[in-house]
Amino acid sequence: MEFVIRTANPRAHVINLVADAPRCNPTASSYLLASLCKFFPVDSVFLCVVDPGVGGARLPIVLKADGRWFVGPNNSLLNTVACHAMVAEWWIIEWRPKDLSASFHGRDLFAPIAAQIDHGGNLSGLKSWCGPNLSAWHGDIDEIIYVDHYGNLMTGRRFICEYDGKKLFIDKHSIPQSNTFGAVPVGQPLWYKDSIGLIEIAVNQNRADEYLGVEIGDHLRFQ
Amino acid sequence: MEFVIRTANPRAHVINLVADAPRCNPTASSYLLASLCKFFPVDSVFLCVVDPGVGGARLPIVLKADGRWFVGPNNSLLNTVACHAMVAEWWIIEWRPKDLSASFHGRDLFAPIAAQIDHGGNLSGLKSWCGPNLSAWHGDIDEIIYVDHYGNLMTGRRFICEYDGKKLFIDKHSIPQSNTFGAVPVGQPLWYKDSIGLIEIAVNQNRADEYLGVEIGDHLRFQ
Amino acid sequence: MEFVIRTANPRAHVINLVADAPRCNPTASSYLLASLCKFFPVDSVFLCVVDPGVGGARLPIVLKADGRWFVGPNNSLLNTVACHAMVAEWWIIEWRPKDLSASFHGRDLFAPIAAQIDHGGNLSGLKSWCGPNLSAWHGDIDEIIYVDHYGNLMTGRRFICEYDGKKLFIDKHSIPQSNTFGAVPVGQPLWYKDSIGLIEIAVNQNRADEYLGVEIGDHLRFQ
Repeated sequence: MEFVIRTANPRAHVINLVADAPRCNPTASSYLLASLCKFFPVDSVFLCVVDPGVGGARLPIVLKADGRWFVGPNNSLLNTVACHAMVAEWWIIEWRPKDLSASFHGRDLFAPIAAQIDHGGNLSGLKSWCGPNLSAWHGDIDEIIYVDHYGNLMTGRRFICEYDGKKLFIDKHSIPQSNTFGAVPVGQPLWYKDSIGLIEIAVNQNRADEYLGVEIGDHLRFQ
Repeated sequence: MEFVIRTANPRAHVINLVADAPRCNPTASSYLLASLCKFFPVDSVFLCVVDPGVGGARLPIVLKADGRWFVGPNNSLLNTVACHAMVAEWWIIEWRPKDLSASFHGRDLFAPIAAQIDHGGNLSGLKSWCGPNLSAWHGDIDEIIYVDHYGNLMTGRRFICEYDGKKLFIDKHSIPQSNTFGAVPVGQPLWYKDSIGLIEIAVNQNRADEYLGVEIGDHLRFQ
Repeated sequence: MEFVIRTANPRAHVINLVADAPRCNPTASSYLLASLCKFFPVDSVFLCVVDPGVGGARLPIVLKADGRWFVGPNNSLLNTVACHAMVAEWWIIEWRPKDLSASFHGRDLFAPIAAQIDHGGNLSGLKSWCGPNLSAWHGDIDEIIYVDHYGNLMTGRRFICEYDGKKLFIDKHSIPQSNTFGAVPVGQPLWYKDSIGLIEIAVNQNRADEYLGVEIGDHLRFQ
């Protein structure tokens, strides 16, 4: 179930990513979140719920990264955002509501805290925290992290110039770079720098997920 | 097609449940509606359309139940709300728009009435009614009433303490109670009191509908 | 990915149709758009993106048709709107943003222009244009143009009285007219004038797309 809180603050966006992000996969989701959040203004508040361990031992946390706020579980979902940020501050959510369901912390715990932060950065109920150990976390991964509405495949690798002209290999497929879908024949695959800065794989007027037979978590490499 | 009317009244929510509710199944939908509406404030207005008989003989009606308003067809969709309420009042919609399509009363008939009620409880075009005969209607049913985005299975049975520790049986499966998904092994089923107070069945990090091979309308029992 | 721009102007609606319209099929989408837009007030602004050739040679354009504005690619998507209109004016979008992605002109090029037009009809960055050649364009087509959420089949043919009582033929099926779903047996097909004025095919309490085995682009005829 999806819900969005709208606020009167025109610079604040409390957004729940639960509906769109890879299900039960906070790691893949963390790369998607880190790429999408950069389009939102400073002081935006993100309510982030990809939480297969809801009600279990993972901590409920808050991250402030380069001026944007993130509220969610400490299960790696916020790691990539922190990894890409110049400045990151962390808090643990100590507050608990009177009626906390075991299965819907997005509604009962994270949403009220997100709304509270949206009201002038109110931090009551939060305790300052050193954050998770990110020494082994990768800012980019060579994996499929998201399959969109059209079957296009986002990867966890941000485009930089050194990939220009290289071939992308996934499973047994070799895929050429192309700036536009239309520059390859209908039904043929291409890779490109997508609209949020990631390396993405598509098939001109077809579904890349079905054409390539790949899914979230599958590995790729460049040559 | 889905549509939502937003109003200037911050305490009023005119909500169309057509997109999310079980298709062509007003009975199952009635249990979902009755559980969800309790989270909305008094004076909320619900525009309810699960209406396989649109354009046929069923009456267009309005229900006021414990202060919340419901506009929709008299095809059992509003029965459970009324059954759970302390106070229920009913009206028949006598008004007809100049252009009434035969296939979309949600837009042409129910939405204008819902918007009108939202403007200060205006009841013009409505005639007081005794309501449907609910003497044989059940406040709870031991059936699957909804399959969510993740494949979790909502039932039409509200949780009460007497179910604590019991096993739930559906088809050939025996399912243990668990407060959290993570307390059962990955891939195994559980039942729990869900976030809207119903008994719900899930599989840890998998789809319960596919794992159990069950669907809306299937029966369950406790032991 | 879907996005909607909301504006402070209560008479303006900037709407992105990308999510709902037939994918990669601007021609089918053009018939859907032309039928839907008539329900919106004059001065509405429509952001229209069904654009398999994004980043290629097709022009970015603006159409003002009977007082409503349309922003999108010149790939036939706006043709039917213009064809149905009493008055149509066209512009080419000459403005380019500093950062124009190759794959998401909906966000980078069309959305800013739509938002600008919504602010008092500001036309800076646009150049007047004679429009595409519509001499061979059909105002109606006897094809399936859209399959909705329920499996109902919209056609590109607007209902007029001369179809009353005729049979509709598609593939090997002969389908009778009926004003309501309930007037044919459960599981049987019917055609009717739908809620946006088109001829539409449904099956009472079932999916017409699966029952008939047809899809977008399939032809029909009347007899």
